[in-house]
Amino acid sequence: MCAIVGIYGSENAAKNAYYALFSMQHRGQESSGISTADGTKIHLVKKRGLVTDIFDEDAFNQLKGNCAIGHNRYSTAGSDSLFDAQPVFARYKLGEISVAHNGNLVNKNEVRNRLIEQGAIFQTGMDTENIVHLIAKSQKDKLIDRIKDMITKIEGAYCLVIQSRSKMFVIRDRFGIRPLSLGRLKDGGWIVASETCALDLIGATFIRDVRPGEMLIFEKNNKEPISEQLFEPDFHPCAFEYIYFARPDSIIDGTNVYESRLAMGKTLAKEQPCDVDLVLPVPDSGVAAAKGFAEGLGVPFEMAIVRNHYVGRTFIEPMQAIRDLKVKLKLSPISSLIKGKRIAIVDDSLVRGTTSKQIVKMLKDAGAGEVHMRIAAPEIKYPCRYGIDTPTQKELISYNKTPNEIAKIIGADSLGFLSIDGLINSLGNQRKYSLVSFDGRYFAGGSVSSPECNDLDL
Amino acid sequence: MCAIVGIYGSENAAKNAYYALFSMQHRGQESSGISTADGTKIHLVKKRGLVTDIFDEDAFNQLKGNCAIGHNRYSTAGSDSLFDAQPVFARYKLGEISVAHNGNLVNKNEVRNRLIEQGAIFQTGMDTENIVHLIAKSQKDKLIDRIKDMITKIEGAYCLVIQSRSKMFVIRDRFGIRPLSLGRLKDGGWIVASETCALDLIGATFIRDVRPGEMLIFEKNNKEPISEQLFEPDFHPCAFEYIYFARPDSIIDGTNVYESRLAMGKTLAKEQPCDVDLVLPVPDSGVAAAKGFAEGLGVPFEMAIVRNHYVGRTFIEPMQAIRDLKVKLKLSPISSLIKGKRIAIVDDSLVRGTTSKQIVKMLKDAGAGEVHMRIAAPEIKYPCRYGIDTPTQKELISYNKTPNEIAKIIGADSLGFLSIDGLINSLGNQRKYSLVSFDGRYFAGGSVSSPECNDLDL
Amino acid sequence: MCAIVGIYGSENAAKNAYYALFSMQHRGQESSGISTADGTKIHLVKKRGLVTDIFDEDAFNQLKGNCAIGHNRYSTAGSDSLFDAQPVFARYKLGEISVAHNGNLVNKNEVRNRLIEQGAIFQTGMDTENIVHLIAKSQKDKLIDRIKDMITKIEGAYCLVIQSRSKMFVIRDRFGIRPLSLGRLKDGGWIVASETCALDLIGATFIRDVRPGEMLIFEKNNKEPISEQLFEPDFHPCAFEYIYFARPDSIIDGTNVYESRLAMGKTLAKEQPCDVDLVLPVPDSGVAAAKGFAEGLGVPFEMAIVRNHYVGRTFIEPMQAIRDLKVKLKLSPISSLIKGKRIAIVDDSLVRGTTSKQIVKMLKDAGAGEVHMRIAAPEIKYPCRYGIDTPTQKELISYNKTPNEIAKIIGADSLGFLSIDGLINSLGNQRKYSLVSFDGRYFAGGSVSSPECNDLDL
Amino acid sequence: MCAIVGIYGSENAAKNAYYALFSMQHRGQESSGISTADGTKIHLVKKRGLVTDIFDEDAFNQLKGNCAIGHNRYSTAGSDSLFDAQPVFARYKLGEISVAHNGNLVNKNEVRNRLIEQGAIFQTGMDTENIVHLIAKSQKDKLIDRIKDMITKIEGAYCLVIQSRSKMFVIRDRFGIRPLSLGRLKDGGWIVASETCALDLIGATFIRDVRPGEMLIFEKNNKEPISEQLFEPDFHPCAFEYIYFARPDSIIDGTNVYESRLAMGKTLAKEQPCDVDLVLPVPDSGVAAAKGFAEGLGVPFEMAIVRNHYVGRTFIEPMQAIRDLKVKLKLSPISSLIKGKRIAIVDDSLVRGTTSKQIVKMLKDAGAGEVHMRIAAPEIKYPCRYGIDTPTQKELISYNKTPNEIAKIIGADSLGFLSIDGLINSLGNQRKYSLVSFDGRYFAGGSVSSPECNDLDL
Repeated sequence: MCAIVGIYGSENAAKNAYYALFSMQHRGQESSGISTADGTKIHLVKKRGLVTDIFDEDAFNQLKGNCAIGHNRYSTAGSDSLFDAQPVFARYKLGEISVAHNGNLVNKNEVRNRLIEQGAIFQTGMDTENIVHLIAKSQKDKLIDRIKDMITKIEGAYCLVIQSRSKMFVIRDRFGIRPLSLGRLKDGGWIVASETCALDLIGATFIRDVRPGEMLIFEKNNKEPISEQLFEPDFHPCAFEYIYFARPDSIIDGTNVYESRLAMGKTLAKEQPCDVDLVLPVPDSGVAAAKGFAEGLGVPFEMAIVRNHYVGRTFIEPMQAIRDLKVKLKLSPISSLIKGKRIAIVDDSLVRGTTSKQIVKMLKDAGAGEVHMRIAAPEIKYPCRYGIDTPTQKELISYNKTPNEIAKIIGADSLGFLSIDGLINSLGNQRKYSLVSFDGRYFAGGSVSSPECNDLDL
Repeated sequence: MCAIVGIYGSENAAKNAYYALFSMQHRGQESSGISTADGTKIHLVKKRGLVTDIFDEDAFNQLKGNCAIGHNRYSTAGSDSLFDAQPVFARYKLGEISVAHNGNLVNKNEVRNRLIEQGAIFQTGMDTENIVHLIAKSQKDKLIDRIKDMITKIEGAYCLVIQSRSKMFVIRDRFGIRPLSLGRLKDGGWIVASETCALDLIGATFIRDVRPGEMLIFEKNNKEPISEQLFEPDFHPCAFEYIYFARPDSIIDGTNVYESRLAMGKTLAKEQPCDVDLVLPVPDSGVAAAKGFAEGLGVPFEMAIVRNHYVGRTFIEPMQAIRDLKVKLKLSPISSLIKGKRIAIVDDSLVRGTTSKQIVKMLKDAGAGEVHMRIAAPEIKYPCRYGIDTPTQKELISYNKTPNEIAKIIGADSLGFLSIDGLINSLGNQRKYSLVSFDGRYFAGGSVSSPECNDLDL
Repeated sequence: MCAIVGIYGSENAAKNAYYALFSMQHRGQESSGISTADGTKIHLVKKRGLVTDIFDEDAFNQLKGNCAIGHNRYSTAGSDSLFDAQPVFARYKLGEISVAHNGNLVNKNEVRNRLIEQGAIFQTGMDTENIVHLIAKSQKDKLIDRIKDMITKIEGAYCLVIQSRSKMFVIRDRFGIRPLSLGRLKDGGWIVASETCALDLIGATFIRDVRPGEMLIFEKNNKEPISEQLFEPDFHPCAFEYIYFARPDSIIDGTNVYESRLAMGKTLAKEQPCDVDLVLPVPDSGVAAAKGFAEGLGVPFEMAIVRNHYVGRTFIEPMQAIRDLKVKLKLSPISSLIKGKRIAIVDDSLVRGTTSKQIVKMLKDAGAGEVHMRIAAPEIKYPCRYGIDTPTQKELISYNKTPNEIAKIIGADSLGFLSIDGLINSLGNQRKYSLVSFDGRYFAGGSVSSPECNDLDL
Repeated sequence: MCAIVGIYGSENAAKNAYYALFSMQHRGQESSGISTADGTKIHLVKKRGLVTDIFDEDAFNQLKGNCAIGHNRYSTAGSDSLFDAQPVFARYKLGEISVAHNGNLVNKNEVRNRLIEQGAIFQTGMDTENIVHLIAKSQKDKLIDRIKDMITKIEGAYCLVIQSRSKMFVIRDRFGIRPLSLGRLKDGGWIVASETCALDLIGATFIRDVRPGEMLIFEKNNKEPISEQLFEPDFHPCAFEYIYFARPDSIIDGTNVYESRLAMGKTLAKEQPCDVDLVLPVPDSGVAAAKGFAEGLGVPFEMAIVRNHYVGRTFIEPMQAIRDLKVKLKLSPISSLIKGKRIAIVDDSLVRGTTSKQIVKMLKDAGAGEVHMRIAAPEIKYPCRYGIDTPTQKELISYNKTPNEIAKIIGADSLGFLSIDGLINSLGNQRKYSLVSFDGRYFAGGSVSSPECNDLDL
C-alpha cells in the first residue's frame, strides 16, 4: 500500500502535506515523513509512528518552503523501520534530492544487484533507494533527463514524487497500477495524492487523475504543471484498491470506491446466495459489500458486530479466555441479534483464514444457528508483487484448498467467493484490471533473484 | 459516564479488571486506575490516559491479590486530572480502603461542606472522596456498618465498588440509574461491571443485574456473594444509557442497547417522517437509530459518511480550509452517494448544535439537495445531575429554541426529535426512566449549594 | 533531607521557586512540586523526577500568582512516589491550603492514629498530611491561629512553608534542626529556602536565618514579613548538614559548610593520623574533608578517583566483571597515582560499609600498597528520626562493631573516625548540635508506635 | 572527539561495547550506536541520546553475535542528528558492512565530490559514509584489500573499526592523532577502545596501544589479531587529548593523562606565576592543572567553585538575574573562601572567552580582591581539522588578541597561557605532537573545497 503526496507552490506546503497524509493514514501506519524544498535546500522530518504523533510545531518550523512531498509507510515484515521510512533524501551530483514512492519494483533485486556490482551501497531495504541511485548514476546533465534514464530501468508498479531544491516531478507507471490524482489548492498551489480523500480534506479541487505513463513537472515559472507522456499507457489498475485498500469516500480513476464495494456485494449475492436471516459485515472493511450483499439477497442487514477502536499499542498478555479469541479485543458481537439466527458474514477478502476462523467461532459462541461466510473478492491464490504485503503462497489459504475445504477449516457452514468475472463486472467498466493475486498473471515483467554475496570469508 | 469494575476471587484479578476496563473505554478516556487487595495490603496504579497505555508489566507486578477494582474516568471540565483519577485509596481507622464510583451525588456539596465544617480536608474534586470520608467518620466498628452509615448520607446516582484488604462491597443506588451487572469468571471468580460487554470480553457468564438498592458482599469464606437489600427499589434507569452511553452490544437491565436504538429510529420515522432519497447515520453513534429510521421510512440506508479513527492526541493548527470545518478531520462524506439527493441524517442526540451545523454544511458541500436532520432522542432542555457532563442550561441549544429555530441555525432543511413518549415506547417496557435532561424532573432529591470559604483574609 | 522554598511578592514567583529548587536538587531527587497562589486560587504542579524534567512551559503557564512554595523530595524506602510528592494541597474550611515540609515528626504515628481515631483519612504516607489535617481540625477562625494550634501538636524536626490563597507562613522548629534562610529578591519579593545556595543562584540578598521557634508571616499589605517567636529557642542544629547534606557553598546558621568540612578533615588528621604517601577523597562528598586531612597530615592530596556523572536512570545488568564492583560505574581510580603507594581515602561518613568495601578493593586492584580509610564523622550507631533516611540500626555497620572489626570487613589496612568532640570542635562554636546518630540522645521527645488496624475481618 | 569501541570473540560483545561506550560518554553525548555481527548478519541499534538511555533490554535482544562495534558521537554544529549517528551500516557487493570512525578526514570534501561525480549518493553528512563508499567502489575481491584501497584515498585523523558479518578490522592512521588501545577481556575476547578507561571498567587487561599506521584483523580462526603495518608511522598524537579530551584516569600512548595535566599546571606556574592567596580550578576540567599550578606556586589550592551536576535537558528561560550569568547554573563559588582574596583561577583552555568572562564576574561578585586567570594550554589561534569541533577562526578570542587584551575583555586582572614549549615539556617525551590549533601547522595534508552543485535549474 503506502500513500504519497506532493504539494507545489503553496504557502502551507508542509501543513497541506501533513493533512493529506493524515487522511491517507489507512494506507500505512508504520512510519511517515515529509520533506520540503525552499529553493536552496531540502528539509526532512521522518519517523516511526502515526502522522499526528510525528509532526509537531518543531517539525513544521524545520519544514520550510512551498514544495512538500510526503509518504505513509505500510508495515512490511522484516523491515528496519527506523531506516526504512520515506521520503529518501540524498546529496548527489546535482545537489539535493528527495523521493517518495508508492508501489513495488518487480526488478528491484536485479537493479540493486547491478548497482551493487558497480560499487553502490544500500543503507535501507527500500526500492526507493534504487531509484535515487539510478538518478545519481545517470550521466545526463539535467535532473529531468536523469529521471527519464532511471524510469527505463525500473519495472513494476510505481507512483513517484521526486523533489529537487526547486522543482517537483510526479510519475505514474504506464500500467497505472497504483492511483494518483491531481488537484488544485485554494491558495493556487498544486497537489498530487494517492487518493482523492486527501484533496477533499484540505479543500482542494480535483482536476484529474495522473495518466498511466505520464510525468508532471512542476517548476517555479510555470503556472500549470507540464505534462509529458513517458510511455504509451497500458492501463491495469489494481483491483485491490477497490476491494480494500482505498478509503470508501475516494474516487479512483473515475470509479467510486464505496459504490464498487456495494456492487461487488450485489454480484456476490447473485453468484453465492444463501438462505439466511441476517447479513452482517466484518467491520469496518466489509460494510459496503455486506450492504450490497444484503440488498442483493433481500435479507436484513445489521451492524451486529461492533468494532472497538481503542486498540492501543501494547496489550498485556491476556488470560487464556481471551488468548483463544483475540479477535474479541477488536470485534464484539451483539448476541441478541445473532442468537438462533442463520447468519451471512461478509468480509472484503480472505488471506490466511486465521481471523475468519475466530470470527466464525465468535458468532457461534454468540448463538448463531448457521454461519455462512461470503467474501466480496475472488480467491487469493498468488502473492502479489505490485505493492501488497501478501504472505508467501503457502500461507494463502486459497492456494491449494477449495472453498468447501476452507469452510471446514474455519468452521463456517458455507463459504463463497466472488468470481473474477463478477469482480470485473462489479467494477463496471471495460478496463483490464491487475488481478495477479487471483489469476497469477503478471504483465509488468521481471524475474526475481537475490544473488547477494554470501561468501562470509571475503 | 465513567465505568467501574470489581473482580473477586480470581487468580487473574488485575488482568481481568484491565480487560474489563479496556472493553468499557468508551465510558471514559481521561484516566484509569486499578487497585488490588491481597489480604494484607491494597496496591494501586492510576494515571491519566487510555487503559492500554497506563498498565504495563510493571503495573501488573504491583497489582497483586485476587480482588481488583477499577475505574475509567470520563473527562469533566475543570478537573485536575492528575489527582482526580479513581479508585480513591486511603488509610483510615479500619486499615486500608479503596473506592471506585460511577455516578453523581446530588448532595455532593452539602456533604462536602458538612465534612469540611467538621475539619475534613479534600485533596481531590471527586465525590468519591466524600464517600471515603463518610466511611471513615462513621463510629461503627465494622466496615459493612460504616458503609451502611455512609449510604444514608448520600443522594443521587451511584454504583460503588469498595475494597478493603480482604473484602469487596458493591452497591447500586435504589433508583438503578447507572447500570451494573454481575457475572462469573471461568476460574470461579466473580465480576461486577458497568456493562455486560466487559463480561463478554473476558468470557464471564452473565448472572444477573445488580438490583437497585442492593449491596453485594464478597468475602473469602463465602462461595457466593451475600446480597442485602439496603433500600426499597425505586427503579429509574437512565434513558441516556440506551440513547448513547452504552456500547451497542451491551444488555442493560435486560434491554438490548442496539435493539433499543433501532426501535428509537423506527419510532422517530413514525413521528418525524420526511421525504428523502437516503438515510445516513452520523458514525458511529447514530448508526443503529439511522438504520431503524430508514427501515421505518422504507428508504435506503447508506453509510455515506466515513469516520477516520486515526485521530491522534494533538493536531497541528490547520489551514483556514480545515479550520472552518474541523468535523472533516473525523468525518468524510462519500460525495457520489450524496450528490443531488435529499438526505436524512440521523444522530443520537443534539446538545450544543455546533457539530451538527458543520455536518449539515459538509453534506451540502458534498452536493446534497436537501438535508433533514433527525435526532433519535428528545430535546435536551435541562442539564443532568446524575452523572452526565452536560453543559450549562444556556449552552443547550434546545433550552429555549424550537426545532424550527434550530434547523435554521444549523442550516438543515428540517429538524425533528423523538418525543419523550416515543422514547419510552421504544424502550419497550413499563419502567419509569430517568428523563431529567428532557423533562427536568429530578426524583432523587437534593439541592446544590457551594458555601466554600471565600473570605481570603482568614 | 528534602528542600523547601517559599517566595512571596515576586512577579516571577514560580520561576524563582524553580531555580531555587534546582540549586537544592542535591537534597532530594525523587520528586518535586511547586504550588502558587494568585490571591483567589492555588495552583499545583508536582511529579516524580528531577526539577528540570518536571517543570516546562505548560507548568509555568499554570503556576500563576506572586506567591510560590516548593519542595524537593528525597527518596525514602517504601514510599508511593506518585502520591508522596509535596506540596500537599487541600480544600478545607477556610478555603485552600498548600504545605511543604522538610523534616520528620517524631510523633507522626501518634498524631496520625489520633486523627484516624477521629475519622480522618490519609491518602499519602507523608507527615505533611498530618499537618494539613491538624490545621483543618482546629476550631480557630483564622488560619494563623489554626497553625499555632497545629504547632503545639507536632514534635520533631520541621521547617514548614504554608500557603493560603493570599498569605504565606514560614515556621522553623524550636530546635532549629533543619536550616532555613531568609533573603530578599532583586524585584523586592522575599524568599525563604533550606540553603543559601538557592539565594545565591537567583541573585537574592541573604538577610538572616529564620530563628529556631520563629514564625514569619507574609501578607499583602506588609512590606516586611511579621516575625513571631512561637517557642523559646532550644537550638540543636543537625550536625549532618555540615557533614554531608548541605552544598559546600551554603552557609548554615552562620557557619560555612565547606570550611567546616576542611576543619573536620584537619581534626581527623590529628585524631587519626596515618603514615601514607597520598590522601584521596571519595568524590564528590569527601573532597573538602580529604583536603583538610591532607593538610593536617602534611601529605600530598590528589583527586585520584574520577567520578563519572553520566549515570543514567537504568543500567542494563552488567557482566560479572562489573557486577562484582558496581562502584566502578561511578568511580574510576587513576592507577598511575595509586600504584605502589600507601593511600589514605577519606569519606564523609560510613553507613553500611558496602560501598567502602568496593572502594578499598578498587584501590587495591589499582595497585595501592596500603589503603587506610578515614571517615570525617563519628561512628553512626543510631538511626536518626529527624529527617534522615537511615537504615535500621542493625544495618549500621558501626552499631556493634569496632573500627578495627570494620576495617577487616571492608579490607582496609586501618579505619579511623572523627570523635564526637572532634566534630564539635571542628564546627567551631559553642552550639549544642543534634548528634543523635552518634550518641543516640534524642532531645525532641516522642515515642513511636504503630497501632494501625490489623484486624482484617472488620 | 567521539569514541569508538570494537569487541571481538566475546559472549557478551554488545554489553561489553555498551559499558565501554558508557565509560567514554565524555567524548560524545549527542548519539550512540552499536552494531553486532553474528556470523551471518549484522544488527544495528543507534539513536540520539546518552548511552544509558539508548540501550535497553530490547536493544540487547537484537544485538546478537560475538563481535560488536560502537560509537559515541560528539555534537557538531549543523548536523542532522537523526541520520548522523554511527556506526554506518550498508549492504554492498560483499554483503554487509558496518563502520565506526573517530577523527576527521581532511580530504573529506574532495573524496565526496569525486564519489558524487561518479554517481554516488550521500544520505548523511558524516565522512564515515565516504569510507563505506570507498570500500564498496573498490574492485578488489576481498574486504581486506578493499579496505587497503580505501585507506590510500583518505587523509587526516582516523581511528576506524570495520565489521563484516564475521570479521573485524581496526585501523589507526599513521600519525596516531587519535588514541586507540588494545585489551583482552576476561572471557578471552578482544577489545579496542579510544581510551583505556573503557578497558578498566569492564575489567579488560591492557595489552598495548594500536600503533600508528597499523591494521589489526580479527578473524574467527585466529587466536590473536593479525597485525599489519599499513604505513610507516609518523607519530603526531593530538596534544588536546592530554589537555582536555581524555578522562584523567586514561593512559594514552603510555602517558598518563592526569599526570600530564598536573605537569602542565606546574610548568604554567613557572611561566606565568602570579602573586595570589589561593588557586582555584574551573571544575571539573581544570582540577588537575590547577593543582599542579598551586603546587608550582606554593600557594593553597581550594575547590572553591562547586559544580552542579543536575543540569537537565531543557532550562526554562530564567529571570534576568540568572540570564546575565548563566554559568551559575553549573558553577557556584564558595564565597567565604574567596572574599577579599587574590585568586588564580585555572582552566584547561580558552576558546571564545564567553564562559571565562562570566566566571571572572562571578568570582568578583563573590568578593574576590583580584582574579588572575591561567590557562594550562597555549593560545588557540587556529581551528583544527583533525576532529575537534572548534569554531571558525574569527570566533577564537586568541586569534588576533594578546593575552592582555583578552584579560581586559573578560575582566581578569591578568591572563597567562602555557607556552607551546611548556606544553611539550610537560608531556615529557620527545614526540612531535599535533599542535595545529596553536601553531597552525597541518602535517597530514589535504586542502578543502566544496564544489557542490549549486545550479538550481538542472
